[in-house]
Amino acid sequence: MKRNVIVGQSGGPTSAINSSLAGVYTTAKERGAKKVYGMRHGIQGLIKGDVVDMSRYIKHDLHVELLRRTPAAFLGSCRFKLPEIHEDKELYDKIFDQLHELDIEAFIYIGGNDSMDTIKKLSDYALLTGSDIKFVGCPKTIDNDLALTDHTPGYGSAAKYIGTSIKEVIRDAMSQEYPKGIATVVEVMGRDAGWLTGASCLAEGEDNEGPDAMYLPEVPFDLDLFLKKAKKALDEKGYTVVAVSEGVRTKEGKYVCEMGADSGFVDAFGHKQLSGTASFLCSYLAGKLGCKTRAIELSTLQRAASHLASRIDIIEAGQIGGASVKAADEGSTGVMVVFERESDDPYQCHTAVKDVHKIANEERLVPRKWINKEGTYVTDEFRTYVEPLIQGDLWPIMVGGIPRHLYMD
Amino acid sequence: MKRNVIVGQSGGPTSAINSSLAGVYTTAKERGAKKVYGMRHGIQGLIKGDVVDMSRYIKHDLHVELLRRTPAAFLGSCRFKLPEIHEDKELYDKIFDQLHELDIEAFIYIGGNDSMDTIKKLSDYALLTGSDIKFVGCPKTIDNDLALTDHTPGYGSAAKYIGTSIKEVIRDAMSQEYPKGIATVVEVMGRDAGWLTGASCLAEGEDNEGPDAMYLPEVPFDLDLFLKKAKKALDEKGYTVVAVSEGVRTKEGKYVCEMGADSGFVDAFGHKQLSGTASFLCSYLAGKLGCKTRAIELSTLQRAASHLASRIDIIEAGQIGGASVKAADEGSTGVMVVFERESDDPYQCHTAVKDVHKIANEERLVPRKWINKEGTYVTDEFRTYVEPLIQGDLWPIMVGGIPRHLYMD
Repeated sequence: MKRNVIVGQSGGPTSAINSSLAGVYTTAKERGAKKVYGMRHGIQGLIKGDVVDMSRYIKHDLHVELLRRTPAAFLGSCRFKLPEIHEDKELYDKIFDQLHELDIEAFIYIGGNDSMDTIKKLSDYALLTGSDIKFVGCPKTIDNDLALTDHTPGYGSAAKYIGTSIKEVIRDAMSQEYPKGIATVVEVMGRDAGWLTGASCLAEGEDNEGPDAMYLPEVPFDLDLFLKKAKKALDEKGYTVVAVSEGVRTKEGKYVCEMGADSGFVDAFGHKQLSGTASFLCSYLAGKLGCKTRAIELSTLQRAASHLASRIDIIEAGQIGGASVKAADEGSTGVMVVFERESDDPYQCHTAVKDVHKIANEERLVPRKWINKEGTYVTDEFRTYVEPLIQGDLWPIMVGGIPRHLYMD
Repeated sequence: MKRNVIVGQSGGPTSAINSSLAGVYTTAKERGAKKVYGMRHGIQGLIKGDVVDMSRYIKHDLHVELLRRTPAAFLGSCRFKLPEIHEDKELYDKIFDQLHELDIEAFIYIGGNDSMDTIKKLSDYALLTGSDIKFVGCPKTIDNDLALTDHTPGYGSAAKYIGTSIKEVIRDAMSQEYPKGIATVVEVMGRDAGWLTGASCLAEGEDNEGPDAMYLPEVPFDLDLFLKKAKKALDEKGYTVVAVSEGVRTKEGKYVCEMGADSGFVDAFGHKQLSGTASFLCSYLAGKLGCKTRAIELSTLQRAASHLASRIDIIEAGQIGGASVKAADEGSTGVMVVFERESDDPYQCHTAVKDVHKIANEERLVPRKWINKEGTYVTDEFRTYVEPLIQGDLWPIMVGGIPRHLYMD
């Protein structure tokens, strides 16, 4: 590389997104880039001229290591979809003026579906206008729902956190005694794809029976079946723990979290209030069975818990960041770097470069055949798929008993 | 010791309660106890005759180590308060018959306030009936609200988890951009005592500004002040993260989580529904400021997260378990073992034996002078107090990428 590289982060934060940033930085420097610029809050920062020189924050190797272990987008994230080129050509001109002014050779965007849409549009515009800047997407999302890649960085760490936390919650539940039993419903992220909810199977092992059931958004949610299974577990064991995706819907297409609204959940301002899927299901079980219930939403915790990162996930996130720079340096543009799995055991994976036009706005769901017939648990195939992605630990650098992060002053 | 020891666990689970159990087991064996029995689900198990020989589960040192790192009560817990002696003398006779049949020399009960009440009553009854069985309480509670002890095992690990998780949540919040900002309210356990909520100060450091405010139950909750501070932070930074105890009350004594009920939160069965403190406060902020909000309840996670245990907490929990056996072996009964702090830095602490009659049913709150005048943050004294308790890490024994626990077959 002879000129400069610019990098941005976009979409929901993860535990691994900064490892990709670190990979972009170190590979760009190794390949001769003069400067590595960071866009603050993604493409919106570039449009506003809010761009930083990464060397201000990364002065030595320890900073790289801290960055790898710092959760959430170090540069700040955004949720901004570029208009179509014909809708606002001026905006595109402005962006390219900025890029030329910064003497940019490669533009790397770390993110999910919307970010790949940005790469697609900017690379199209470069083609139209004869710009030689290369645009490469680097995948990121805990949801694991990007097309054409075996998995996405960030998913492995979230899966490890979900498996571990649910295992701990099961131990908590089994240690307690309530007259009519205790039912715990753990709500996991994933509006349309059940990759994260499926990872609750990781709680199962020689030392733990795992959740009694899990409900993925790929399968229509059956409230009667849910009740029947919960009752059976409560009768047999005195407790039940189930995992449920925030996005489960009935076969009529109605979100379970909206079922509470029907029944009159109204907030302090008289607005109908979505109660949360777990919270609704707990109130349903309490009403039907009289058991004690506990709704647990893993919420932001599951995507920010870098204190329980998967080592393979953090390493791969760094590698794919580096591979994105390499792809640009070797002349690719309008592409995303993906993972292709060679084997499950021993786990082997390599990166490849794919046309971003085939990725943007596509969603990859859990195959129906990786979920049992009843729709209440993932199969061994799912487990074989996810297990390699959670291997190895990368404990935080602890200072004073608390994880240390890299910060912007 | 010449005869047998029996041990039970009671009340809410913690990450450290099994380390105390391990300490009881190893010390009892070292001091010559023939058998160490475990009551399943506390005193209720003893009454039912549901008692196990611990050597069935602990066959070698690795089992001891696994037990130390296994969250929640290994033997099962209960929430059972013994009647007064005059109310049900038969029950007491039954318990003592069981104890004599098992040839028990020392009865160790690991738990919180209710458990100390059990120790008090059983030791009183032994005194009345001339039994030579020794009854000793071993403190345990994440709430840290037991009287006469500097702190309770379990608190340190929960505090470490809360500080770490809130630090990660703050990083997540600061990386995002929303038109009217994003407010995150993290709800922490602690009905009357704010020790856990105060631990959110641990998120603050060179690399993190910490929560913008924290609301402990020791101070009347002022909704206007809460709104004012949230608005200020949102205006200045575009985000705010605050910690709030589940038990905060207005100066009229009304629980904040009940304020939602007034406004018509009704569940699927038409029952008034407590919305949760964080959830109510989020809906309040959204209504007043139009900001995006996120309510996070740390729920069971904060007491079960042995994957992020404090090493000092786990070590001390084992020590105090051992000290409980030693106290009994040296002839003490009707006592609880406590921690007495000698100095903060270097941290030094020793165990002592206290009359359980002075402990049972007393509650230790955060001193008002350890909370700032406004009632929205803890002082440096609080931080000096809590910091030693979260030092050092004791990572889980990972098998296949997930923490391994000791289990009962």
